Amino acid sequence: MTVNRRMLLTTRPSDRVSLENFTVDEAEVPEPGEGEALIKTLYISLDPTNRVWMVADSYLPKVEEGAVMRGLALGQVIASNDEQYPVGDLVVGTLGWQEYVTTGETGRLNVLPRGTGLPMTMMLGTLGMTGLTAYWGVTDVLEVKEGDTFVVDGAAGAVGSVAGQIAKALGARVVGIAGTKEKCDWLTGELGFDAAVCYRDDDWKAQLKAATPDGVDAMFENIGGEIMDAVFDRLVIGGRFALCGMINDYNSNAPSNGPANFAAIIAKRIKLQGFLILDYMGRTMEAMGVMIPWLQEGKLKHEETLVEGDVTDTPDTLNMLFNGENRGKLVLKIAEPDLEVPAP
Amino acid sequence: MTVNRRMLLTTRPSDRVSLENFTVDEAEVPEPGEGEALIKTLYISLDPTNRVWMVADSYLPKVEEGAVMRGLALGQVIASNDEQYPVGDLVVGTLGWQEYVTTGETGRLNVLPRGTGLPMTMMLGTLGMTGLTAYWGVTDVLEVKEGDTFVVDGAAGAVGSVAGQIAKALGARVVGIAGTKEKCDWLTGELGFDAAVCYRDDDWKAQLKAATPDGVDAMFENIGGEIMDAVFDRLVIGGRFALCGMINDYNSNAPSNGPANFAAIIAKRIKLQGFLILDYMGRTMEAMGVMIPWLQEGKLKHEETLVEGDVTDTPDTLNMLFNGENRGKLVLKIAEPDLEVPAP
Repeated sequence: MTVNRRMLLTTRPSDRVSLENFTVDEAEVPEPGEGEALIKTLYISLDPTNRVWMVADSYLPKVEEGAVMRGLALGQVIASNDEQYPVGDLVVGTLGWQEYVTTGETGRLNVLPRGTGLPMTMMLGTLGMTGLTAYWGVTDVLEVKEGDTFVVDGAAGAVGSVAGQIAKALGARVVGIAGTKEKCDWLTGELGFDAAVCYRDDDWKAQLKAATPDGVDAMFENIGGEIMDAVFDRLVIGGRFALCGMINDYNSNAPSNGPANFAAIIAKRIKLQGFLILDYMGRTMEAMGVMIPWLQEGKLKHEETLVEGDVTDTPDTLNMLFNGENRGKLVLKIAEPDLEVPAP
Repeated sequence: MTVNRRMLLTTRPSDRVSLENFTVDEAEVPEPGEGEALIKTLYISLDPTNRVWMVADSYLPKVEEGAVMRGLALGQVIASNDEQYPVGDLVVGTLGWQEYVTTGETGRLNVLPRGTGLPMTMMLGTLGMTGLTAYWGVTDVLEVKEGDTFVVDGAAGAVGSVAGQIAKALGARVVGIAGTKEKCDWLTGELGFDAAVCYRDDDWKAQLKAATPDGVDAMFENIGGEIMDAVFDRLVIGGRFALCGMINDYNSNAPSNGPANFAAIIAKRIKLQGFLILDYMGRTMEAMGVMIPWLQEGKLKHEETLVEGDVTDTPDTLNMLFNGENRGKLVLKIAEPDLEVPAP
């Protein structure tokens, strides 16, 4: 009998999450019931929102105490009583932090198209939730256009790095804010950002000012706190502000503050909008139709930080996001596919 | 010789403004130069934004030390070398806190249409800057529609009382927040608001909750602080938030905070926009075309608090706004017209 290790959230973290917040449960691998398929988890996507799910009701209810930790992942169908999930196919969905799961537990999954030649983890990254979040934030919420000065923080992350490349493809002047010189060099050298600001430098505010001589037309906010304030203060009259995340505050129980100089929203007639990828799920094909050609042309580059381990490495791997240790999409590989993926 | 008393801003207030912040200058009444007209000030409009102009650069630079205090007012043309300003006609514009002024100093003024039969001060209130601010905030920024639950604070003020009536005319359920039971009774009894919440009552948050059982679709924010927070927390998913003013903070030099639970903007996909009437000046006739019939039909009622005095009463009258002593538009009358207004 193979064991199914499952990460049950048993206490709620108040700072960085740790393995101690979990019980590593060893259950039997479930049998797929009638109309169900059994999935083996291969790659687990680590996302800032995971940390929110552990403690607070937000756009989804928080994970119940004692339940398997919610998480996006990529897996392979290894047994199936549902013809929409053929054995061997790869699927993406909310598999959770566990080694095996049935579709009775996960709800609907997306089957990956066969034979694209694209790396399978791209479906968790540039063509997954984070990449699509970037796409809709830049195109629909901010409506970035040629000549805009566009600033994104968390710029070397899974969302930020894609957002900046999309804004660049649309003709904006793109400035990224990141935490190390290496990341900044990568943004300008590899991804084509016009400028990058290292927020750990003493003069980072001066760098930001120099990089945005005409102010900021559109800001894509992932971080919050002091970085958000600095970009906010550079917004022009009529500036647009897309609020995607406030990762700065996700490891604390304190509420997240808005920009310090909030009343400037009036004088500058700023449009601020919060958004979630959930509202765009019906438009995924539309985004893919634009992003896949960009990937093929090299206008858009997929980047990921792949950690190899097992399901019990999920808490430590998640913390890498908050320590700025990832570049691009952060993924934990916990298994190899057992079966060959069927031909197209 | 008649004297022209002028209120020169000589020190900047840090709390409530007082006469001591001004020098009452007694100058000669100016002669209109070539192509200029001379205006006698009759009614001075007192607006929260006056207080901002005294201390901070915002959408306009702050008033220079020693300069005449900037202010909107209604006056009469008493001498003219400019045929667009006929003697006897009434005009509205930035006349300033002074008894006489030439159009060389004010820049362009709006001549009031003759023979409308409407009270002249309505051009400072319901059909003036405050009424138009309400109109564009409700119709263009918030796009209020039938079935919306609409909440406005400062609801008995010049902007709030008109905003609520407009939202009602558009079919919304309208809830006003005001500071006294008398004001609340007036909102529901006279202006047709569906409910009113008195924020000085201990249970005002419970009142707000009871008045918005399905949450808030659109909020028109004039106040800021704790009142803003309470309405913000009632916003539904996809809620709209128009930021018009933060009067709560105008008598302090501290920056204005955003909503305490700012990150909720993400989970609730809230659209927040700051706006200023300045951006809508070219569309005034469009608004008048809607609002004048509403005034005639009684769907929209003009309300004002008229104080009689002289130009030196401007600081004390302004403070009435922050003490909640006005209902509707606050106007200081400093003179009667000298001349008959020409016939249409």
